[in-house]
Amino acid sequence: MSDTRILSEDDLVGTFLAPLAAGFPGALGLKDDCALLAPTPGCELVLKTDPIVGGVHFLADDDPADIAWKALAVNVSDLAAKGATPRIYLMALSLPEAPERDWMARFAEGLGIAQRAFGIHLAGGDTDRTPGHLSIAITVIGEVPAGRMVRRATAAAGDALYVSGTLGDAALGLALRLDSGLGARLGIGVDEAAHARGRYLRPEPRVALAEALRTHARAAMDLSDGLMKDLGRMCRASGVGARVMVADLPLSSAVRRALAAEPARIRDVVAAGDDYEILAALSPAASTAFEADAQRAGVAVTRIGEVTSAREVHVLDAEGVPLPPGRTGWDHFQPR
Amino acid sequence: MSDTRILSEDDLVGTFLAPLAAGFPGALGLKDDCALLAPTPGCELVLKTDPIVGGVHFLADDDPADIAWKALAVNVSDLAAKGATPRIYLMALSLPEAPERDWMARFAEGLGIAQRAFGIHLAGGDTDRTPGHLSIAITVIGEVPAGRMVRRATAAAGDALYVSGTLGDAALGLALRLDSGLGARLGIGVDEAAHARGRYLRPEPRVALAEALRTHARAAMDLSDGLMKDLGRMCRASGVGARVMVADLPLSSAVRRALAAEPARIRDVVAAGDDYEILAALSPAASTAFEADAQRAGVAVTRIGEVTSAREVHVLDAEGVPLPPGRTGWDHFQPR
Repeated sequence: MSDTRILSEDDLVGTFLAPLAAGFPGALGLKDDCALLAPTPGCELVLKTDPIVGGVHFLADDDPADIAWKALAVNVSDLAAKGATPRIYLMALSLPEAPERDWMARFAEGLGIAQRAFGIHLAGGDTDRTPGHLSIAITVIGEVPAGRMVRRATAAAGDALYVSGTLGDAALGLALRLDSGLGARLGIGVDEAAHARGRYLRPEPRVALAEALRTHARAAMDLSDGLMKDLGRMCRASGVGARVMVADLPLSSAVRRALAAEPARIRDVVAAGDDYEILAALSPAASTAFEADAQRAGVAVTRIGEVTSAREVHVLDAEGVPLPPGRTGWDHFQPR
Repeated sequence: MSDTRILSEDDLVGTFLAPLAAGFPGALGLKDDCALLAPTPGCELVLKTDPIVGGVHFLADDDPADIAWKALAVNVSDLAAKGATPRIYLMALSLPEAPERDWMARFAEGLGIAQRAFGIHLAGGDTDRTPGHLSIAITVIGEVPAGRMVRRATAAAGDALYVSGTLGDAALGLALRLDSGLGARLGIGVDEAAHARGRYLRPEPRVALAEALRTHARAAMDLSDGLMKDLGRMCRASGVGARVMVADLPLSSAVRRALAAEPARIRDVVAAGDDYEILAALSPAASTAFEADAQRAGVAVTRIGEVTSAREVHVLDAEGVPLPPGRTGWDHFQPR
């Protein structure tokens, strides 16, 4: 078996990773200690690091191409929310054992597909053995025209609240993966279930929405820890509150079916993580232009509520009754 | 006990990490999704990521202040070797359990001390739970005047080879930590042993040498995987070879004593990792000026050999006999 494994770091980097850096001269072919980035004059850099770990953010036997996609997507999603154009990423890859060549080839293939989809290049990184689970720590760097990054802390009372795409698919997708009988019990069709699972495995960063956000949004962030928690963060940072209508939340047919069968699953829609959609606050006067620009960019956006001065976040059901408090979002450190 | 643990990410970031970002406005108080960096006009950015993992790069019960220092130092060391001035870093912290407040306070204290020593600021990051060991993935960003990064692949036949500091201390320090009777057997004094252990725990990135490298060096890299392996990498990348004299290697008194007692430990000097000293190749005509600038910067540098056109690396003992081949440096994937 040992000839199917990669037995040196130089082989791993040279054979599988260097081709991913071929499009970026500053990567120096991954043959130097560091990468070199010449910033575009007049631009500022937007930076983010968000690692994913086996057993936490993905399952160990997931398709390595999906793992690679997700590792990059969760980071690029933040750049998109800030209105930034992705440029390069660095990747620290910690592997529990010398990887099989087939596994690594598939992982690199997934990264390549994601890179092309997001318009970003590998610039550098490091590979290590770890006594723990597979861990992929990616740092992404994007650019915005100077002074134009869309902040989180700048939402204002009266702003309209928007989200991109649909909410709750990833949580449902994970639940479907962990419970093979769930789809049938919830009356979810095969295609719908595949859609939900795909949304968990391959979240789609809304890179195409970046320019519309830069042009119109007063504040924005991506939804990684659930709408309620992340909206709460935006509101706290901005010193405002929010009112969101459950009836206005954009839902896929899979999630609508799940809610029809088990209404309590609404908590997974508002409080589960991994959506990687964008939450934006913008002046109501900018709504029409934002919607038009989003449509031109090919990204669905939905108005879900408004920013208030009350410093509280209310998520109201169809009767205007706030959802009961409870688990309000994903926190890696809170006891469950 | 639970009130001694940190139970939310927001507490962990706000209480322990945000103060480390106070000196860098683009960190936005760690309250936004991303950090924002305005590059200095006329400069290029130099980027590196190198994670450290418990059980691989440090021991789980190490002082958290030492772990923090090392996590930052191993990355800043690369910037120094490239002639770059450190600016900011992002940190992805994966913790096996909700950390004790005392542990986290000590970790943050160590980071703060290292930041001030290296002239760098925390700009952003992420905290996560992991089912594995503690892992700290830091990405550092430094700056060089455009076009002035010191490369690895540009050494030329005839160049003089230099290293900073002394070699082999970290390997000896680790050995002393793992075998409490070793110091006495090797005749190493208490102070010498403490020095060697300190070099393992708190490697010192040669930030002060960056300008001299930028001014004089043709090629440089930091030594993280052992002199033979890293020198081999520089030579392969540059299409050259090298000849190094063991008698010329700079050694601490602790290592000299270890070699006197057990001459075979020379392999730990030339082939063990974690030195985090700088290897530089420069024109012999630049030697005098480089040595003078290094001295002004307060960093010892020692000429250890020369670059050859032979495409082979020879490490010669006092009789001019090459050290026997064998394990030639640290590789995370090679069978041991």
